[in-house]
Amino acid sequence: MHAEIIAVGSELLTPDRIDTNSLFLTAALNRLGIEVIRKSVVGDDPSQLRDAFGGALERSDVIISSGGLGPTEDDLTRETVAELLGRRLRRDEEILAGIRERFRRYNRPMPETNARQAMVPEGAEMLPNPRGTAPGLWLEARGRIVILLPGPPGELEPMFEREVVPRLEKRSPGLRLYTRELRVAGLPESDVEERVSGIYRQYPDVRITILAVSTEIQLHPRLWSDNAREANRVLDEMSERFALALGENLFSTRGQTLEEVVAEGLHRQQATLAAAESCTGGMLAARLTNVAGSSAYFRGGIVCYSNEMKISVVGVPAETIEAYGAVSSEVALAMADGVRHGTDSTIGVGITGIAGPSGGTAEKPVGLVHIAIADRAGSRDKAFQFAGDRQRIRLNATQAALDSVRRYLLYAKPGRE
Amino acid sequence: MHAEIIAVGSELLTPDRIDTNSLFLTAALNRLGIEVIRKSVVGDDPSQLRDAFGGALERSDVIISSGGLGPTEDDLTRETVAELLGRRLRRDEEILAGIRERFRRYNRPMPETNARQAMVPEGAEMLPNPRGTAPGLWLEARGRIVILLPGPPGELEPMFEREVVPRLEKRSPGLRLYTRELRVAGLPESDVEERVSGIYRQYPDVRITILAVSTEIQLHPRLWSDNAREANRVLDEMSERFALALGENLFSTRGQTLEEVVAEGLHRQQATLAAAESCTGGMLAARLTNVAGSSAYFRGGIVCYSNEMKISVVGVPAETIEAYGAVSSEVALAMADGVRHGTDSTIGVGITGIAGPSGGTAEKPVGLVHIAIADRAGSRDKAFQFAGDRQRIRLNATQAALDSVRRYLLYAKPGRE
Repeated sequence: MHAEIIAVGSELLTPDRIDTNSLFLTAALNRLGIEVIRKSVVGDDPSQLRDAFGGALERSDVIISSGGLGPTEDDLTRETVAELLGRRLRRDEEILAGIRERFRRYNRPMPETNARQAMVPEGAEMLPNPRGTAPGLWLEARGRIVILLPGPPGELEPMFEREVVPRLEKRSPGLRLYTRELRVAGLPESDVEERVSGIYRQYPDVRITILAVSTEIQLHPRLWSDNAREANRVLDEMSERFALALGENLFSTRGQTLEEVVAEGLHRQQATLAAAESCTGGMLAARLTNVAGSSAYFRGGIVCYSNEMKISVVGVPAETIEAYGAVSSEVALAMADGVRHGTDSTIGVGITGIAGPSGGTAEKPVGLVHIAIADRAGSRDKAFQFAGDRQRIRLNATQAALDSVRRYLLYAKPGRE
Repeated sequence: MHAEIIAVGSELLTPDRIDTNSLFLTAALNRLGIEVIRKSVVGDDPSQLRDAFGGALERSDVIISSGGLGPTEDDLTRETVAELLGRRLRRDEEILAGIRERFRRYNRPMPETNARQAMVPEGAEMLPNPRGTAPGLWLEARGRIVILLPGPPGELEPMFEREVVPRLEKRSPGLRLYTRELRVAGLPESDVEERVSGIYRQYPDVRITILAVSTEIQLHPRLWSDNAREANRVLDEMSERFALALGENLFSTRGQTLEEVVAEGLHRQQATLAAAESCTGGMLAARLTNVAGSSAYFRGGIVCYSNEMKISVVGVPAETIEAYGAVSSEVALAMADGVRHGTDSTIGVGITGIAGPSGGTAEKPVGLVHIAIADRAGSRDKAFQFAGDRQRIRLNATQAALDSVRRYLLYAKPGRE
């Protein structure tokens, strides 16, 4: 069973907007065993709409559109599809009453144009919209299923889950899509590719996508099958072989973020963490605290952009900064140890580097970042050289810091010393 | 002149990847006076490719594709387009020599499959690719222009700028697209719409997009015109009327971010800033330090997630926390004043709130955030009630904090007291 997605709206043909509903719809359709073979974006123009839906009806079993169901004269999806299928539009009094009721609830008069949203092609089923005035529509014609959905994701997504999924489930074939998601830190994409390509070539039925997402590499194997047990066995076997090839660089097989994995490690070790950040300017703390419940293990952070703050708040000795410079192994170690001690945490992290664009020298170029980890027993430091612009360097530095904490937690017993 | 963009690649039909080349291409085409009327995504499948290019040749003056020019058997764009236009493919020895040379430079043998990338449809112009092995192709047929580009943005973008723009400039009509970008903080989308709709209705030739981007509202007026002076006059007049209607809520007319506007204000006032953050956990500091040169005005930040840190590092009196609770106007004020004093900054910001999902009470619900600003003369606080999930509440809180600093800087003379 093949599907096609049409996003309707002239604003989606500007450089400012992109259709993202199709990602949600694709994931949901794949779960039902339906593959997406075409996606299109088309403006609110009758001849373009006719052409897009006409072509789709030639090609695809299921056609899903988003947008163009609003109350204004720009919104032409309903009319165009009805005309294309030779169906008359009739006013549905029940829908109209629902729209009137919605306006009454918000104490506003219903503009007359909203009555257009109650026009339904003959033979169409109405898909209720509890989040907005535009109902969706389900039509069957010429052996095809045509589904018209509203554009706002907050309306489209619950309508799809509640109304469309149960209807499609009855029609969809036995084939289902099985997937896994593996996440890797600390290896460039080409190295990941090199380590796993010999493995995935042995599974010709599995399609694999290797994605560089922000600062990590993700592996997404996808397998269509009518046999759940066999599909899961193949994907589990393949994932295990990937895990062996990737070693400690693999940090997640269940879609967790790196900060969530670090959170789990800290919970497991009953350890607490604090961070002193210079060039990353609070990004590490922001990522750590984005995990709900992080107050259980994150004591706090110091963003010490100035040398004065490194000295007075974190407790880095002034002589250390003078002797080695603010961007140095020695200062990173003193920051990690100082923030750990000052906040009475089990683990301290120190980050100091040059995010650029200016401030680099031949000896200490832009992109040089020192990351140190301290516990009660001592501290260690690693120097990184990152490429890219300021934002990229800062992102890579927070990723490397989180990954350093993750690897440290694999072996250390910080809570027991 | 109308254009259509076709993104080729089966991976773009999964839930994991989205075509973003079309945004770059749309902006570049619009600057040349060419409107985009359709975007499609299609897999590496000959019949689907034939259908997509065949349809486009019926509709559009310019057809631009990205992807499908690689060396493997999956990459079929070249072959399919040649077949569709009835052109034979011939091997271009110059291109082949270039590919061989590229491999030699990297000390790698050229796999024989790469020779496919030297196959060119008769009558096509080759578009050199200094960043990769796949050259682009320019074809003219049936009164249409067909342009095949490689998929990776790092190859597509320079090729488009260097090879395609000069060729299209010669053909494109006098019409050009003129745009403005206005950014608004502190007003919901519906309020912005209400304030400006009476104005933009008086300019029927200007198309306006109102976007809610993260936590701010953007207005993008677009006007097609063959008269630069008149178009700029209309857009300037309209923007001035928007500015009057939006008042202080309008923070940028040149595309700057809110943190960049705050940076300008701090520079202008020769003021320095420090922040004490609880629920935002470093996000405010991270946004402020993402501006290059921020060390000139940002002294540093304290992420005081625990009460102990609020007391020992920021200097909030323990009695204040005990009497009013950590999330209170009084604690926000003490945080702002404490961090200002401790870092010897002109301005201090304090943020304390409940980001959720847990921790809320009837009296202090999830989403309640106190934001305080202190200078040498005193301090003020404002309570906000934000909706949404943890990430949304934290984002809104940093946006409100930046906006509070911006508005404060419009009137205050912190450097002169």
